[in-house]
Amino acid sequence: MKLAVLGAGAVGRSVVELAGEYGHTVTAVADSGSAAVDPDGIDADAVVARKEREGVVGDGDPDDALAAEYDALVEATPTTLGDAQPGFGHVRAALERDRHVVLANKGPVAERYGDLRALERESAGDALFEATVGGAIPVLSTIADFGPSKVTAARGVLNGTANFVLSRMAAEGLDYEHVLAEAQDLGVAEADPSFDVNGTDAALKCVILANVLSDDDVVYSLDDAAVEGITDVPGSALELAAEDGRTVRLIGEAAADGVRVGPRLVPENGTLAVTGTRNIVQLETEHAGRLNVSGRGAGGPETATAVLADVGRLGR
Amino acid sequence: MKLAVLGAGAVGRSVVELAGEYGHTVTAVADSGSAAVDPDGIDADAVVARKEREGVVGDGDPDDALAAEYDALVEATPTTLGDAQPGFGHVRAALERDRHVVLANKGPVAERYGDLRALERESAGDALFEATVGGAIPVLSTIADFGPSKVTAARGVLNGTANFVLSRMAAEGLDYEHVLAEAQDLGVAEADPSFDVNGTDAALKCVILANVLSDDDVVYSLDDAAVEGITDVPGSALELAAEDGRTVRLIGEAAADGVRVGPRLVPENGTLAVTGTRNIVQLETEHAGRLNVSGRGAGGPETATAVLADVGRLGR
Repeated sequence: MKLAVLGAGAVGRSVVELAGEYGHTVTAVADSGSAAVDPDGIDADAVVARKEREGVVGDGDPDDALAAEYDALVEATPTTLGDAQPGFGHVRAALERDRHVVLANKGPVAERYGDLRALERESAGDALFEATVGGAIPVLSTIADFGPSKVTAARGVLNGTANFVLSRMAAEGLDYEHVLAEAQDLGVAEADPSFDVNGTDAALKCVILANVLSDDDVVYSLDDAAVEGITDVPGSALELAAEDGRTVRLIGEAAADGVRVGPRLVPENGTLAVTGTRNIVQLETEHAGRLNVSGRGAGGPETATAVLADVGRLGR
Repeated sequence: MKLAVLGAGAVGRSVVELAGEYGHTVTAVADSGSAAVDPDGIDADAVVARKEREGVVGDGDPDDALAAEYDALVEATPTTLGDAQPGFGHVRAALERDRHVVLANKGPVAERYGDLRALERESAGDALFEATVGGAIPVLSTIADFGPSKVTAARGVLNGTANFVLSRMAAEGLDYEHVLAEAQDLGVAEADPSFDVNGTDAALKCVILANVLSDDDVVYSLDDAAVEGITDVPGSALELAAEDGRTVRLIGEAAADGVRVGPRLVPENGTLAVTGTRNIVQLETEHAGRLNVSGRGAGGPETATAVLADVGRLGR
């Protein structure tokens, strides 16, 4: 397939670098201020090197990438809330051209799911978004295989930064600020970690899960989610939990009765108590009990793998 | 889709019972001595009730089901080794008629993979077999999504009976014979549990994984697997392991260097130490680290769910 990749952060760059290995050709790449376009396939190494060296991917205008020749648009620009722009506009442009869209950007799927599905219904293109929930973990494709109506609930640990902070606090008896600073030094937490530690990132993923599980019957957005972060979890709460064989994790849940994210007590050695930056999703199914899927929930190559799995699905 | 279901054990019966819920029509069912055929759809409840009451599914001859009208043949007869008959013959009949095949029977995929792929290449039908590895757990579809060449190894707990026995031995300090008898009382172990406790069942699943991972480059069969069961694991080994924070699990592995099954020491609270009859599979991927998938690895409705996920994939 021919791919146009919008966004040249860690995920976009990894898609550009790995696409060839999966048999695809990247015909266009854009970041917010530049673009590289070549109908015969851009030079992935050159584009990535230039982005890292000069901060631009090429000499073109970003709109050139949208106008390029491609079968699927990969939307990997940063997640924004509310109108989910500019990501949503990119998705619209592709679907209106009857092209496929593969999203790594959570905004359009969490905040404008109804609009997204409406555009998709009018288009010959499909929209897939496995990469928006749990990085490399195959969550949405598993739900699709089981049938959304056969999965009654989804819950899990969906933010690696918050999970790293909570696991380190519990393991070392350190307080929140100390561990957060450490996580920032390690590059596990961003300079502004608000979305991760206040629960917004996990909530967006749960909203996406709720939208998929409701099978278009009800549309959820972030406004429908009850969200609490980990910034107020004291070290003493983790100590008390440990005395009882338990620990605290930021757990997100999506089910028929809504979307919730917050710190919850879980068994210390239980399935949900993944450590470090790992994510886990539990699916409750109607005929097959509980299914657990865990792995790396973020990272460039990891998330790019999910994007390229979606591209593969479109090609089948 | 129209389905012909061969085999009326727990899995075949569950497929018959659940197919309607997934939008499919069962046009034929057969066990080893009888068949029920109706081009407009058999009466699932009546067929299942008759099987339970009289031991037959209908008044027809088993061959009637093979000759019936269907889009996909569901092969759910018991696994046999060597020539994998009669399952392989059923698969051949369907593919030669350019129909799809969905297997729950491990025999043809583990013992005659090369023949199966050759028949599939000549056919307009496809052969899928998610249900042969790990029951409800989406293992093969995840490998397909990642790309077989991007998964470097698969390992895990693939036999629920053996895992139940080892977990009970470790938790209660009981010996093998005692726990096996208990498992038979509970219906977790069959009257003849040889395939489960001597490692054959797990080995067949690992052979299937190896065949899928090698992407048709090399064909494996049970003869290529190094297999050791759990019958010789003494209670004292589990006690010694526990003193060191570890336990014993029957672990199967499939990688480029071959197929192995045997009792292995694993961390007591680690990911591989699933308890009871649960299964887990770990996939090592090239770009996305390690992925864990766990859930119910056996059971009628659970395995039928995997069969019906394959049927759904064929219809897309």
